[in-house]
Amino acid sequence: MNRTPFCFQSRPKILSSSSVVGALEKKGPLSSYFDLFSPDSKFEMDSWEKAEAEMVRRSAEVAIKKAGLQNENMDLVFAGDLSNQCAATAFGWKKEKIPYIGLYGACSTFALSLGMAALSVECKLAKNAIACASSHYSTAERQYRFPLEYGCQRTPTSQTTVTGAGCAVLGESTARDFPFVSEFLPGIMSDFGIKDANNMGAAMAPACADTLVRYLSESGKTANDFDGIFTGDLGFEGHQIFLELCQKGGHDLRKMSEDCGKLIYDRESQEVNSGGSGCGCSATVFSGYIMDLLKTKKLRNILLIGTGALLSATTVLQKETIPAIAHLVRIEMED
Amino acid sequence: MNRTPFCFQSRPKILSSSSVVGALEKKGPLSSYFDLFSPDSKFEMDSWEKAEAEMVRRSAEVAIKKAGLQNENMDLVFAGDLSNQCAATAFGWKKEKIPYIGLYGACSTFALSLGMAALSVECKLAKNAIACASSHYSTAERQYRFPLEYGCQRTPTSQTTVTGAGCAVLGESTARDFPFVSEFLPGIMSDFGIKDANNMGAAMAPACADTLVRYLSESGKTANDFDGIFTGDLGFEGHQIFLELCQKGGHDLRKMSEDCGKLIYDRESQEVNSGGSGCGCSATVFSGYIMDLLKTKKLRNILLIGTGALLSATTVLQKETIPAIAHLVRIEMED
Repeated sequence: MNRTPFCFQSRPKILSSSSVVGALEKKGPLSSYFDLFSPDSKFEMDSWEKAEAEMVRRSAEVAIKKAGLQNENMDLVFAGDLSNQCAATAFGWKKEKIPYIGLYGACSTFALSLGMAALSVECKLAKNAIACASSHYSTAERQYRFPLEYGCQRTPTSQTTVTGAGCAVLGESTARDFPFVSEFLPGIMSDFGIKDANNMGAAMAPACADTLVRYLSESGKTANDFDGIFTGDLGFEGHQIFLELCQKGGHDLRKMSEDCGKLIYDRESQEVNSGGSGCGCSATVFSGYIMDLLKTKKLRNILLIGTGALLSATTVLQKETIPAIAHLVRIEMED
Repeated sequence: MNRTPFCFQSRPKILSSSSVVGALEKKGPLSSYFDLFSPDSKFEMDSWEKAEAEMVRRSAEVAIKKAGLQNENMDLVFAGDLSNQCAATAFGWKKEKIPYIGLYGACSTFALSLGMAALSVECKLAKNAIACASSHYSTAERQYRFPLEYGCQRTPTSQTTVTGAGCAVLGESTARDFPFVSEFLPGIMSDFGIKDANNMGAAMAPACADTLVRYLSESGKTANDFDGIFTGDLGFEGHQIFLELCQKGGHDLRKMSEDCGKLIYDRESQEVNSGGSGCGCSATVFSGYIMDLLKTKKLRNILLIGTGALLSATTVLQKETIPAIAHLVRIEMED
């Protein structure tokens, strides 16, 4: 049995990261941390799907440039999104000519891609590897729910799919000014019988608690050993349930846990119901905001727990329950 | 730059494999190699989507049992399928309580999952890891094309989505009677402007040739060094194009190359147009037929090149071209 956290020996560094967002995200509290935005979230494209792919492409361009590298230095991309057949990711990366591995983890995709990219650097499958994830409000709404033109009202527990693409370049470096991935724990699916696709936070919270409690128990650490435990993206309802589940398991996370879906919008002034969701949420909050806190040493030792609801529009129509998963990566900054 | 084939040092063994298929596949020439089948391809479920998930679940059950192991010995699953949000895979695996990483590579998924499972064993992320992929004719038809009830005619170049799930259990073993994964080369996307979603073989053939030629060039090997080069799934049209492209590149593969999409059906007696496709095609042909040839030492040194067309129904409607990718794994049998 080897379900313990994987500890990286080579300290795979996060050499750079980029975040590209839409209009609503740019108006939110993390505005200054994002690299690029599109004022109409269209990125000068003629369909929402093409806009999402273009957003992915720009996030790649910025991240590789910020690392001071070229496409030909990149050996592998791990990436995914919410669109059917992960088409936004494929079309965003198709011209970059970098070996490509598509992942599907719903909103957990960014943490998963970060773990896999770090693993590929550790085991020398790649010298430099990329982690990337994206989502777009308008592609997700018409794919999962209703066309925007329909003007459908959302329920209070529903989350707002973030328009955003986040990208990180990983590689080996002896320089001490880069954060590094130190541990990775892939999640186990859980299904607590939630059927309400407008309350995915509730479906994902138990999976998130399961992964964190398993991590703490296997590693012998406590929540207080970390100065940040970021979940992404449970939203306001889901994060509260997650905190309560952890409390019941003997772990008080109130001091150090935050959720990317809560951080990205201002719930008071922006109409976002239970906060942000979508692969692009934790991808941009991590690549923009959290990376900044790490690089400026305001944070030195964090956990990022990506949470995904593994439903589809078809499974919802067939009245299936929602399985969920949470993948954990630990990221540290050198002293 | 590190885009050379990854050579496994630890010889990750394929301890067992399973193949579960539908009615049409069971009537085909590889019938005797499959472990289980469903006479109506419904697997006693009340929707095609639930049938595909159940087929995945049964393939897992059989593979783990054949390896003489239990679920709790499994540390990681790499798996994916064609359904939106890879829901068939998620629902097939959700009760198994094994850490789960979702992949999306369209019909290349099985070769990709085999490479990733071998990597996770090599770098000790997992002691035992599973590779799995599936597809179902009836879920794919209604998702990508038309509901079956519509009775739509297919074009001659179109491929028939295989109803099948294949699963392989990998792990370390000193026993010499298991095939092992010796090399892995992730693919680079290519897009040659094909827009016809009924001719995916033509879209995938250049990606397949690109990966193979890159592999031979980087490894210094020739096609004659292998006693089998299996592509999956280009079908009759695509495989012919692939052979011609390789010929132009100076590699004559006519003696040792076969395509899983050509092997699974009898084109003369079964109405399958250009042959089989879908993640389940190479998954079941490998897990059933090719594994048998390896274990009986009729083959000792093969390449499996999984080919995927990274389109979606939406990208087709938006008149986008079809990006394709091909992932390569080399599998050897001990002397």
